[in-house]
Amino acid sequence: MVIEYQQLFDFTKRILLKIGCPETDAELAADVLLSADLRGIDSHGVARLSGYVRLWEKKRINANPNIKIVHETPSTAVVDGDAGLGLVVAPFAMRVAIEKAKNVGTGWVSVKNSNHYGIAGYHSMMALEHDMIGLSFTNASPLVAPTFSKERLLGTNPISVAIPAGEEPPFVADMATTTAANGKLEILQRKEQDAPFGWVQDDQGQPTQDANGVKKGGALLPLGGDRDHGSHKGYALGSIVDIFSAVLSGANYGPWVPPFVAFLEPDPNPVGEGLGHFFGAMRVDAFRPSSDFKSHMDNWIRRFRSAQPTDGNPKVLIPGDPERDLEKERRSGGIPLLKPVFEDLLKLGDRFEVNL
Amino acid sequence: MVIEYQQLFDFTKRILLKIGCPETDAELAADVLLSADLRGIDSHGVARLSGYVRLWEKKRINANPNIKIVHETPSTAVVDGDAGLGLVVAPFAMRVAIEKAKNVGTGWVSVKNSNHYGIAGYHSMMALEHDMIGLSFTNASPLVAPTFSKERLLGTNPISVAIPAGEEPPFVADMATTTAANGKLEILQRKEQDAPFGWVQDDQGQPTQDANGVKKGGALLPLGGDRDHGSHKGYALGSIVDIFSAVLSGANYGPWVPPFVAFLEPDPNPVGEGLGHFFGAMRVDAFRPSSDFKSHMDNWIRRFRSAQPTDGNPKVLIPGDPERDLEKERRSGGIPLLKPVFEDLLKLGDRFEVNL
Repeated sequence: MVIEYQQLFDFTKRILLKIGCPETDAELAADVLLSADLRGIDSHGVARLSGYVRLWEKKRINANPNIKIVHETPSTAVVDGDAGLGLVVAPFAMRVAIEKAKNVGTGWVSVKNSNHYGIAGYHSMMALEHDMIGLSFTNASPLVAPTFSKERLLGTNPISVAIPAGEEPPFVADMATTTAANGKLEILQRKEQDAPFGWVQDDQGQPTQDANGVKKGGALLPLGGDRDHGSHKGYALGSIVDIFSAVLSGANYGPWVPPFVAFLEPDPNPVGEGLGHFFGAMRVDAFRPSSDFKSHMDNWIRRFRSAQPTDGNPKVLIPGDPERDLEKERRSGGIPLLKPVFEDLLKLGDRFEVNL
Repeated sequence: MVIEYQQLFDFTKRILLKIGCPETDAELAADVLLSADLRGIDSHGVARLSGYVRLWEKKRINANPNIKIVHETPSTAVVDGDAGLGLVVAPFAMRVAIEKAKNVGTGWVSVKNSNHYGIAGYHSMMALEHDMIGLSFTNASPLVAPTFSKERLLGTNPISVAIPAGEEPPFVADMATTTAANGKLEILQRKEQDAPFGWVQDDQGQPTQDANGVKKGGALLPLGGDRDHGSHKGYALGSIVDIFSAVLSGANYGPWVPPFVAFLEPDPNPVGEGLGHFFGAMRVDAFRPSSDFKSHMDNWIRRFRSAQPTDGNPKVLIPGDPERDLEKERRSGGIPLLKPVFEDLLKLGDRFEVNL
């Protein structure tokens, strides 16, 4: 099932209008959400739309939030998302970071009282058109066990860094701090296939290849997989994301982060408000002339892209290459949807009297 | 062979004075270098002292540099290390970051024309006493192959992040962006043991367990180890460190980073000056009151430390725990040196007429 981008965008926007989002918010949120589908991170796109709606029904998402700065210095701010869609709160906060960078070279914004913000890369890439480097982190509901822990204490806590180049397309890293994203496990689950060791542990904290291991009380593993392969580093990275996003802002952190699924209740004794994000913007010319930076980035990218590949691999990729290729393809050729996702959208459309 | 900390410090300082470092620089450099030995990162401590001296002989290290800011905004700077010891250049740059953070909330400093700076964690931890979060990155000579590359294009490019807490000791992550640090391979080489798969590839870019694989034209692998286990994420992290440290500052990047070993010549056509570092300092109270932040960091640390451990592991560790324990032990009990390292220091002492 392939749907044209514009059709899916209009549908998403109209659903968001129906739950009470203002026009500009509905448009922005649809743009953010669909950037995931365009870039091939299907688990974070329209597949989640009905999940957002269920959170709104539970009054855990505020469709018309009063997002505001609650603390600031020339280069920093804390933003209170007022329980809004992360899809709207995050671009607000990133714009604050960009404005601060215009004034003093860099801007750093930690966000509380927000919700799931789509793909990390959308927000970091907002910096690119301003000749800035963008950073975007978020915490998320606990699915990941620290090294040596049976318990799940961290989310997949992604890191995205977007770096402008000159003639070359930008460098855009966007990655969960786990060995494998949850979306990859879902693919294996549907195919009833095993996962490689290093992706999941079981409910006793032992290595397992069961792709359903997380659902059975196990956990995703931090990047590295096990101690011998550096899982303590993935654990540290996920922790840094959690602390920058939530301990700095006053959001919930670690095991207290509210679940995305509406059928699980948030902790009755939260340690903060909603979930947290962290954004950064650094003006390239706050370090050296922009043209110098860009020509060296072009040189960097070309040198890495032209490295001698290992057998069976056509070439060395630059972070962002696969997603950019897919975006080009899907913008013109449409977005493939899995049957259950398509049916879920149809049901949503029926309910709100919106045609897909 | 165990040597008291003070004895090793005095020896190191006197050697550095002999090559022409000013008194304060020699003291600072000895402090930075020996912090590696104290914290158990033996590969980055006094074991490298004779290597620094050999670089000085080759005039690739300037013992009396004029380190200066060459570009700045209220929250950023580029520092030119004048080919000085990274052990001295890095603390200078970190102090600049801290001063900027005092003024505008955060400070970000990219450094060119420097050399190896010891352990990343020394510099990030400088922020702690100011109630700031500290960041420290550096690039390094190319030993690491990007995912799908036969060629070595990145250094072990470490990331360190130090975060203050209240009653609990600070969170201090300090990690190479590879699966395993080179020091761990050296231990296996001495024992003539194999490395686990995922640490090293051979000269054809194929997985190998040969602990000497890097010396034979292979490469260290990025954190993740292989594509299935997220090596593209480790590759992206190492790249971000390289770009922030060198493309932002005007240092050499990727395969152009000058080798640490004096017997290998730097590239005759460099793309920048020396090697690069990147530092950040963020005032905690630029986001929320310091006491709030610290009490939540204590809560974060206690919750993670008290997580239910997996069988056979006594407890979940917080980044920085093992190094702090070792530092306490070695400050009082002395620093163990391997025989070849001890003999190397004796030879150095003979040459400069300095007693160990």
